[in-house]
Amino acid sequence: MFEEMAKSPATWLSGQGDESQVVLSTRVRLARNVAGCKYPTSADSETRKRIVSYFDSVLTRSEILSKGQYYKAADIDRLDQDFLIERHLISPAFLDGDLSKTVLIGPEERLSIMVNEEDHLRIQALSSGLDAQSSFDLAMQYEAEISHHLEFDYDKDFGYLTACPTNAGTGMRASILIHLPGLVLTRDIDKVISRITRAGLIVRGFYGEGSDVLGNLFQVSNQNTLGLAEADILSQITEVAREIIEEEAGARQQLKSEAADMIEDKIWRAFGILKHARVLTSDEVMNLLSAVRLGYVMKVVEFIDISLINEILLLSQPAHLQKYYGTEMDQNQQDFVRAQMVREKLRDTGP
Amino acid sequence: MFEEMAKSPATWLSGQGDESQVVLSTRVRLARNVAGCKYPTSADSETRKRIVSYFDSVLTRSEILSKGQYYKAADIDRLDQDFLIERHLISPAFLDGDLSKTVLIGPEERLSIMVNEEDHLRIQALSSGLDAQSSFDLAMQYEAEISHHLEFDYDKDFGYLTACPTNAGTGMRASILIHLPGLVLTRDIDKVISRITRAGLIVRGFYGEGSDVLGNLFQVSNQNTLGLAEADILSQITEVAREIIEEEAGARQQLKSEAADMIEDKIWRAFGILKHARVLTSDEVMNLLSAVRLGYVMKVVEFIDISLINEILLLSQPAHLQKYYGTEMDQNQQDFVRAQMVREKLRDTGP
Repeated sequence: MFEEMAKSPATWLSGQGDESQVVLSTRVRLARNVAGCKYPTSADSETRKRIVSYFDSVLTRSEILSKGQYYKAADIDRLDQDFLIERHLISPAFLDGDLSKTVLIGPEERLSIMVNEEDHLRIQALSSGLDAQSSFDLAMQYEAEISHHLEFDYDKDFGYLTACPTNAGTGMRASILIHLPGLVLTRDIDKVISRITRAGLIVRGFYGEGSDVLGNLFQVSNQNTLGLAEADILSQITEVAREIIEEEAGARQQLKSEAADMIEDKIWRAFGILKHARVLTSDEVMNLLSAVRLGYVMKVVEFIDISLINEILLLSQPAHLQKYYGTEMDQNQQDFVRAQMVREKLRDTGP
Repeated sequence: MFEEMAKSPATWLSGQGDESQVVLSTRVRLARNVAGCKYPTSADSETRKRIVSYFDSVLTRSEILSKGQYYKAADIDRLDQDFLIERHLISPAFLDGDLSKTVLIGPEERLSIMVNEEDHLRIQALSSGLDAQSSFDLAMQYEAEISHHLEFDYDKDFGYLTACPTNAGTGMRASILIHLPGLVLTRDIDKVISRITRAGLIVRGFYGEGSDVLGNLFQVSNQNTLGLAEADILSQITEVAREIIEEEAGARQQLKSEAADMIEDKIWRAFGILKHARVLTSDEVMNLLSAVRLGYVMKVVEFIDISLINEILLLSQPAHLQKYYGTEMDQNQQDFVRAQMVREKLRDTGP
């Protein structure tokens, strides 16, 4: 499964779009539940199976949905599960407990719909760069399509009802994946994070809830789904993103004027290690790529482009690496083969 | 002063000679004093000046000595002093106290004679690789020449008398500069050092007494100058060198079979950093070159040769770097320019 997918970069990491030098991608996720059915977390197995069959039948009746790739959770092996998580197409929670679950992956992997994750439906859309509107439009297109066939649990006061009340209302979460090496290096990041948090947003690492910050990649998302219109959430995340981008630019400017040699040295060493190392962990690659990405934007290493950096970032992840080489490997083998893959990808780049 | 010298590698670091993959160089030093004169450490200024004038007159009368480059310590500025120390042509002690001192540098810098260091004369000869005999022969050739003109302080029981009794007897010290990354990595180095020490030899860092071990370079020298014939000292140091070389080879073999990936990774990363860094301290260069030198011998980075590694080692030292670029620089400038020099030297090397 997913062999072809593993060989091509994810569209949402293409390095295209607005502000793509700092914002890797924008995600919008909608939580929806089918009226009259218990939510997956409290439902019995029969109910969960019924939800899947409802969704199956939507697929047969919807032209747009039927074009997606559709998988049963139980049919996805462990490596492919990890692969889909790394590709941000499913969440780790999707694999917990009972596997009466399915996932639909839309064209170009910009869309995925998880059935029976925490809610009956989790519809998410991804865009490269800072583009909350088109992620929202894409998610809504599928939401509207499904709503022709299924009735969602909706309260005129509360809005959409969800398994966890923090998601009720719009049922919407918008998030950006943003690269902030400048603010980390100037040590202003904590100040910025606490201001974002006070403004009612959440800041996390690359892999979402509870994950470490690797490669100076931060996920910023809205916390409030209730009492705000969708358009307000989209403007809020976009506005916050623009503020952070400006602060990151300021930090980079400061580094350039106060510590140019140190920064250039850090960038070149990272490039030198990526180009020559024989053993590389996935975490180290993320951190080294962070320096190289900064170097590209600061015009220190202009010969390497963002889409290649993103491709290496994606392929360096354990499941991607194993899928890319078509074989399961232990940790040591992965670290060895990862270094080989990175060298191959960087072979023709250089000053 | 020394502008030409600064542009060319030192002969004793040419990477030629026996066992030159492990032993960088062999040095033999003879301590001699002029009969009937107090030793420099206790002599008054007049006596020290008289010793210099004696040596001056030897130079005018000896064809072989007159061919050397001859300098008064007082004429050598601070940067050139450091330069000569880095080049192992004078000792740090040569610059202490009263500067009624001179130094003669023989052809190809393989020979130097310090007048009024700790003893009236310190005659030292250097060879590339493991070659105690030819260093000894060269030093003795100059010693014999001088002895035609000056009478040395000699006691038929004790042998040559010296300022410090530990040098009395042969007045000779033989030492090798040896590269032991394998034994350091397998952590067997302490065991080896304590055995060498028990056998009556001394182990020190690159710059002699009290210096840190940088770049896994060790100086091993004889401690006893009394009660042993010169030939015995030469065989002892050569024999010990061969034992250490064998143990180092064993350590490298062990690393190759037990941790080949780790070692290759270390070597390639060192090469990658040297080739790309923008800021490099002299200590870091020594340590990185150690890995690259190991890589050359282990046939991991065969495209770089020992003489280039030695040249970079020499030029990376602070005074060499400033002489090479013909300008005095502060620490930060040096670290920046050093990285530039290393990149230039490695420009055409690569896999």
